[in-house]
Amino acid sequence: MNNEDKKYVYLFKEGNKDLKDILGGKGANLAEMTNLGLPVPQGFTIITDACLKYYQDNETIDSNIEKQILDALKSLEQITNKEFGSLENPLLVSVRSGSRASMPGMMDTVLNLGLNDQVAASFAKKIDNARFVYDSYRRFIMMFADVVKGYDKSKFERQLDKYKASKNYESDLDLTSNDMIEITSIFKDIYYQIAQGEFPQDPKEQLLEAVKAVFRSWNNQRAKIYRQMNDIPDSWGTAVNVQEMVYGNSGTSSGTGVAFTRNPATGENHLFGEYLINAQGEDVVAGIRTPKSIDTLKEIMPQIYDEFQKTAKLLEQHYKDMQDMEFTIENNKLYMLQTRNGKRTAAAAIKIAVDMVNEGLITKEEALLKVEPNMLEQLLHPKFDEEALKNAHAIASGLAASPGAGCGKIYFDSQSASNAAKNKEKVILVRLETSPEDIEGMKDAQGVITIRGGMTSHAAVVARGMGRCCVCGCKDLIIDEENKTLTTSDNQIFKEGDIISVDGSTGKIYGEEIKTIEASISGDFKTFMSWADQIRTLEIHTNADNPHDAKQARIFGAEGIGICRTEHMFFDPERIFNFRKMIIAQDSAQRQEALDKILPYQKQDFEGLFRVMAPHPVIIRYLDPPLHEFLPKEEKEIRELAADLNVSYEDLKTRIDSLKEFNPMMGHRGCRLAITYPEIAIMQTKAVIEAAIEVASEGNRVVPEIMIPLVGDAKELKYIKDIVCKTADEIIADSEVDIKYKVGTMIEIPRAALVADEIAEYAEFFSFGTNDLTQFTFGFSRDDSSKYLTDYYEKHIYESDPFVHIDTKGVGALMEIAISKAKKVRKNIGLGICGEHGGDLESIMFAHKIGLDYVSCSPYRVPTARLAAAQAAIREHQK
Amino acid sequence: MNNEDKKYVYLFKEGNKDLKDILGGKGANLAEMTNLGLPVPQGFTIITDACLKYYQDNETIDSNIEKQILDALKSLEQITNKEFGSLENPLLVSVRSGSRASMPGMMDTVLNLGLNDQVAASFAKKIDNARFVYDSYRRFIMMFADVVKGYDKSKFERQLDKYKASKNYESDLDLTSNDMIEITSIFKDIYYQIAQGEFPQDPKEQLLEAVKAVFRSWNNQRAKIYRQMNDIPDSWGTAVNVQEMVYGNSGTSSGTGVAFTRNPATGENHLFGEYLINAQGEDVVAGIRTPKSIDTLKEIMPQIYDEFQKTAKLLEQHYKDMQDMEFTIENNKLYMLQTRNGKRTAAAAIKIAVDMVNEGLITKEEALLKVEPNMLEQLLHPKFDEEALKNAHAIASGLAASPGAGCGKIYFDSQSASNAAKNKEKVILVRLETSPEDIEGMKDAQGVITIRGGMTSHAAVVARGMGRCCVCGCKDLIIDEENKTLTTSDNQIFKEGDIISVDGSTGKIYGEEIKTIEASISGDFKTFMSWADQIRTLEIHTNADNPHDAKQARIFGAEGIGICRTEHMFFDPERIFNFRKMIIAQDSAQRQEALDKILPYQKQDFEGLFRVMAPHPVIIRYLDPPLHEFLPKEEKEIRELAADLNVSYEDLKTRIDSLKEFNPMMGHRGCRLAITYPEIAIMQTKAVIEAAIEVASEGNRVVPEIMIPLVGDAKELKYIKDIVCKTADEIIADSEVDIKYKVGTMIEIPRAALVADEIAEYAEFFSFGTNDLTQFTFGFSRDDSSKYLTDYYEKHIYESDPFVHIDTKGVGALMEIAISKAKKVRKNIGLGICGEHGGDLESIMFAHKIGLDYVSCSPYRVPTARLAAAQAAIREHQK
Repeated sequence: MNNEDKKYVYLFKEGNKDLKDILGGKGANLAEMTNLGLPVPQGFTIITDACLKYYQDNETIDSNIEKQILDALKSLEQITNKEFGSLENPLLVSVRSGSRASMPGMMDTVLNLGLNDQVAASFAKKIDNARFVYDSYRRFIMMFADVVKGYDKSKFERQLDKYKASKNYESDLDLTSNDMIEITSIFKDIYYQIAQGEFPQDPKEQLLEAVKAVFRSWNNQRAKIYRQMNDIPDSWGTAVNVQEMVYGNSGTSSGTGVAFTRNPATGENHLFGEYLINAQGEDVVAGIRTPKSIDTLKEIMPQIYDEFQKTAKLLEQHYKDMQDMEFTIENNKLYMLQTRNGKRTAAAAIKIAVDMVNEGLITKEEALLKVEPNMLEQLLHPKFDEEALKNAHAIASGLAASPGAGCGKIYFDSQSASNAAKNKEKVILVRLETSPEDIEGMKDAQGVITIRGGMTSHAAVVARGMGRCCVCGCKDLIIDEENKTLTTSDNQIFKEGDIISVDGSTGKIYGEEIKTIEASISGDFKTFMSWADQIRTLEIHTNADNPHDAKQARIFGAEGIGICRTEHMFFDPERIFNFRKMIIAQDSAQRQEALDKILPYQKQDFEGLFRVMAPHPVIIRYLDPPLHEFLPKEEKEIRELAADLNVSYEDLKTRIDSLKEFNPMMGHRGCRLAITYPEIAIMQTKAVIEAAIEVASEGNRVVPEIMIPLVGDAKELKYIKDIVCKTADEIIADSEVDIKYKVGTMIEIPRAALVADEIAEYAEFFSFGTNDLTQFTFGFSRDDSSKYLTDYYEKHIYESDPFVHIDTKGVGALMEIAISKAKKVRKNIGLGICGEHGGDLESIMFAHKIGLDYVSCSPYRVPTARLAAAQAAIREHQK
Repeated sequence: MNNEDKKYVYLFKEGNKDLKDILGGKGANLAEMTNLGLPVPQGFTIITDACLKYYQDNETIDSNIEKQILDALKSLEQITNKEFGSLENPLLVSVRSGSRASMPGMMDTVLNLGLNDQVAASFAKKIDNARFVYDSYRRFIMMFADVVKGYDKSKFERQLDKYKASKNYESDLDLTSNDMIEITSIFKDIYYQIAQGEFPQDPKEQLLEAVKAVFRSWNNQRAKIYRQMNDIPDSWGTAVNVQEMVYGNSGTSSGTGVAFTRNPATGENHLFGEYLINAQGEDVVAGIRTPKSIDTLKEIMPQIYDEFQKTAKLLEQHYKDMQDMEFTIENNKLYMLQTRNGKRTAAAAIKIAVDMVNEGLITKEEALLKVEPNMLEQLLHPKFDEEALKNAHAIASGLAASPGAGCGKIYFDSQSASNAAKNKEKVILVRLETSPEDIEGMKDAQGVITIRGGMTSHAAVVARGMGRCCVCGCKDLIIDEENKTLTTSDNQIFKEGDIISVDGSTGKIYGEEIKTIEASISGDFKTFMSWADQIRTLEIHTNADNPHDAKQARIFGAEGIGICRTEHMFFDPERIFNFRKMIIAQDSAQRQEALDKILPYQKQDFEGLFRVMAPHPVIIRYLDPPLHEFLPKEEKEIRELAADLNVSYEDLKTRIDSLKEFNPMMGHRGCRLAITYPEIAIMQTKAVIEAAIEVASEGNRVVPEIMIPLVGDAKELKYIKDIVCKTADEIIADSEVDIKYKVGTMIEIPRAALVADEIAEYAEFFSFGTNDLTQFTFGFSRDDSSKYLTDYYEKHIYESDPFVHIDTKGVGALMEIAISKAKKVRKNIGLGICGEHGGDLESIMFAHKIGLDYVSCSPYRVPTARLAAAQAAIREHQK
């Protein structure tokens, strides 16, 4: 389409909720509310493509787009019957970001735009409220300086504090009209000094500059980090909403608030929210003043409350989802500023979904689609042990802002918390209040405590989004951020590094470490998961190397073990000794001797797994990593090992050196080991089959599946399979139990996919090892790629990490080739994924699409995978 | 087919030359000669499958096969009218190996089989020649002990020497009938002592044991090495030929010899060969007695000579190729023992092919198919400079057994020669005579000298096969292998490590280093290559990084540069300094400064290449290897570099460490470098385009093609292409020359093949980097794979190295996917291979088959590739 013809700006009444991709979430919903006839201050939205074009054009606004903006402004003037820059009836607007996905607080906003010296003077006279008008003007100057120009905000704040001190004022409320006028003048002077020019008086110039600033904020550091954390593509860009200002801060019959149609922490079906009288929206979100519960609005402004409640109900019915709304009351009139599907904890998400089905509002399928599968992991994290809690004494309590149990050393700033976490410490971040700069620290912490702020404060919203446990508004505690201390009401002092436990479900804080217990699946969660299980067709297996993990996975619903990485069993100190002996053996006899000592351990491991997992299948992958990974690297350790093994240091050193490789990932590993040392495969087969016989003779159904890694040619598999079957069949023949076993392979070498028909002659199942398959298909070493992938994201070459989401075009194409070739030879071949992608949403969708039988993931991802599989099945039917 | 029904044994009259795969070369040709009515001692062939079955059955002969052998033996008795083990008219046989491909001297042979005490006694009486019969018997005992039983041959030889000494005999000819009887008895005693049992008297037992021994010899060490060197699959196995003995050693009217229908060194059309009177075949081949030229047989036995010459002509006409024949004369009767296509030097091969076309015997196409493309490299190796030769004084001369010029330090045993060669010394192997154990040493040497032996001795045959220059039968020289000295006729002494030059084309040996000059293509060679060029459709490009190599390649017929690896240009000491400065630059400005200094060098390099190669295209690959490859590793070197670069040791060390990678092959290299540091691509583009303008303005046609390595996603290529085109177009716009350039990519990442349609949107050509593509497709690190590939060959998982011959199933499948996808988007996309496979025969065949436009190989492989491409085209039409 010719750029001239393209529509870059939409009035609210021209849009609707389905245009989210171009209008952004906020813009689309403002349009939708406008069409529903709700009281929305009018405005227009500059679409996301304008942002992309802005970057394409070296950060300038195209003249056509500028014209469309100014045209929309004219229409807005007609709608509001106000005029931009008018002295009589001035139009003042807010300029806000709004991208396709919600990115709360990540991008910039400018309020009160349209004010200048003349407008302020005549407007103050007209509404006879100079205090309010100049309060707005001085705020606008500071915001413009900060957001649009990037000047240091604190220069303004410092002057304000100075002014207040000179007048002996305690709070902003003490400032008079004249004070505001004077402060405005002071702010303009500061602006002049920094900018070496006047504060812009042309409202249109203000507007265009503000729009650019919002575009630029798409690429600020915190927005980028947020997008990476939440997998939001850089290529989306943000829309910009220009909207008539309404003022919650214009007196005591005004106010502003945020509310959810249901409780976002618990899911309870009751209007939930907070408001402040005589305040602007930012005051509520920033958590500077502690707001009041929405319930109290009923008493103060019953009519407004009633109207708001009806509006909330309407919106929930209309969107068929719990809504998160912002509203402002200006002189006893309600305005809706925003609605969106509300963020919620996993527990709330589940409860809301189940309740809405029971209320007849949505179907089970819709309910399953409403819960983000990744959230479920939150519900599986440990809780405090009830018994331990009985004896624990809370040192403080606050708002239960985000559920869960966290325990760790306290840190008072985000940077220190992150650093400690990088050193494997468990940390709790304690802040007076959090701001967007704290995101990294929150991410790295086990839990978050803030002294100020309510249930909708920044800390609370972000923590819930992350599934991080959080207690907000802990007024009992006194924080000294400078000296890094936290003082309780009974004068107990906690210093940086002291241990604290945080219960995000009760809001209690304990000055000690409290025992945690594993989670289980019950109540609404159980109901919800049972719906998922009814609908999904993909089986969900788990990656587990020991009975403890296997047990946990079964509790979470795993239907088998998709991969047991046998080498993890060798790192135990007792075992590693014999394993190392095996590695440095001079000949086959010595190697056999060492292997004979390892056999009983391996057998025992497998018995444990078979017992826990019966009657489900257990896939055991044979030894995979290069042998040098098991040997020490430092001279001292080598000397010790040499002494233990009773060989000379030099001999051992030579052997270790001879095992070193240039590219170990593509070296002597996987099935290549068993081809060189068939003894290893024989030992592992003995362990598997003897263990299976043992556990089967206890009356369990045991289905061991032996998986050969890193196969790239059918003859490799045949060679090892022959050895495995010979060993296994002899043992089975000598026993009294009839064990059936399978032999399959991983498909993780590109060549294996290309010759899958030949391999399928010998393989009873394929498990796609998508970690390695991704490495080889891309030629990316996973351990090295982070170095350059940052550049790839920055330069928009990749949107996401192929080790996280499966690359359907390349790796996926190989998988599809493999499946189609294999099925020609062995129609019922078992097909699955093991490895990290097995727990990733998009990858599970892809696994379902290409017809795999199962995915395997870590125990804590099993419920996520069950839900994702159900969603994949539902989406398929929707098509 | 049921094993019972399968025919494992063929009488000679049942076979023909087309059954080589099962009868082996020798067996098939004995059958063919039988059918042509030529005088062939009759016998039968046990097919190659019997050998494979022998290994399958744990080294036993299946009862069905044993029965077929004994049945064939019965038929042979009827044909010969002799009987196995008969006292009256005993049948004596030879048992010889014979595989599909000729493997001269690599496997075992047993002669005179069928003799035992009783047969010897009565046979001696019957033919009245006890000396001959017992000479045969004692040879048989020793051969049986050695070959079949694996006993140490020297135990027998030592006793024989002792016996001769006790009688004061000088030579074997002094031994009388009684001596032979006595020696036979002594040999039987030795056998008894080692075997703890009698020498087997049952001829059938002797036969079956000998057959097994021949089967076993398929897997002896030297046969395995030979197969690896000559790419003969282990899976072929050997056939066994059992043939009635004829005796060239039964008196002065007997003899034996070998001959070629044309001269195998020069190709001259004249019967060429050697014979010995009263000798067995092994005596000629082993080189112990120096035989006479076949021409002299005309005088001694004119009738036999005439018959033989006619036979030779017949065979050459029949096989349409130069024949290598073995014959025996027994009591004035000629027997043909073998014929096969004769091995020849490259020069001979070319001359024979061109002559046969001129003689009307074969077509040009047939001629092109007769020359093994790999041989051509022999013709391209340097020759001695004529001027230098004029002033050189030969210290000795011998037979010009294999042409070429070699110069190096002399070594007297194969092991020392190989070791020295591994240390990058150029070596000449000097031996009294060579045996199969010397193969490795010959392979590693620049040239070979033997003191004994003729033109058909082991040394001569093997050296010609390898293209190694060789002078045989240097009787002027006295060798002392023990003290490692070589003494000339004028008492000059050369010790191990002294330098000698060998001229295999003249047979002269020089005691000094002589200057060599590059080869060119002229005469028959030129004619022959012009035929190849007429027929082939594949273009042949070369890999060259400097004007010298490029020039050489043009002389050899290269039609462009397929890959110039620009990083090779950075290793020059002057340049590496600035390159290292670029690597450790702290920021973009520092990096730019270093790059600015490199630019003039790169420009100069490219100018040289463009000048030499005009008007042909030159493909320039941008920087590919990981940067750490350019930095030092040892502390001392790092300290020196730090001082040179004027940075602290610690800073430099930290930077070097930060560049280290776990798997550099899959790390920060290729286009990933240019994505991180676009400055590098900009510098290289400036160098390419400025050089092109310079050379074009001299009146040359210049076609630079810029090749981006390691692309795995279209966006990578687009990002770099944008930079390249912007830089290039600006320079071109500012110049007065209209340079056209192309931008393409290597396809060396599996993913690139899978998304080739997307990549082809930006790539004007694809060059398949099959080295890396093989690494990633197999998950094999080329540097590490040799460790385990040995096991793969031994266990018959791979027959050949995928880095040598392209893996058509896996890597080839990816190439075909890439081509079909790319052509959908860009019909005329340029397609080629660069890298090692570009010079490999099988890979060139494959390249032709899948429709590539060109292959690129090293300069010395260009003629080979031209011929291989012609053969591929011919074979395609034959289908």
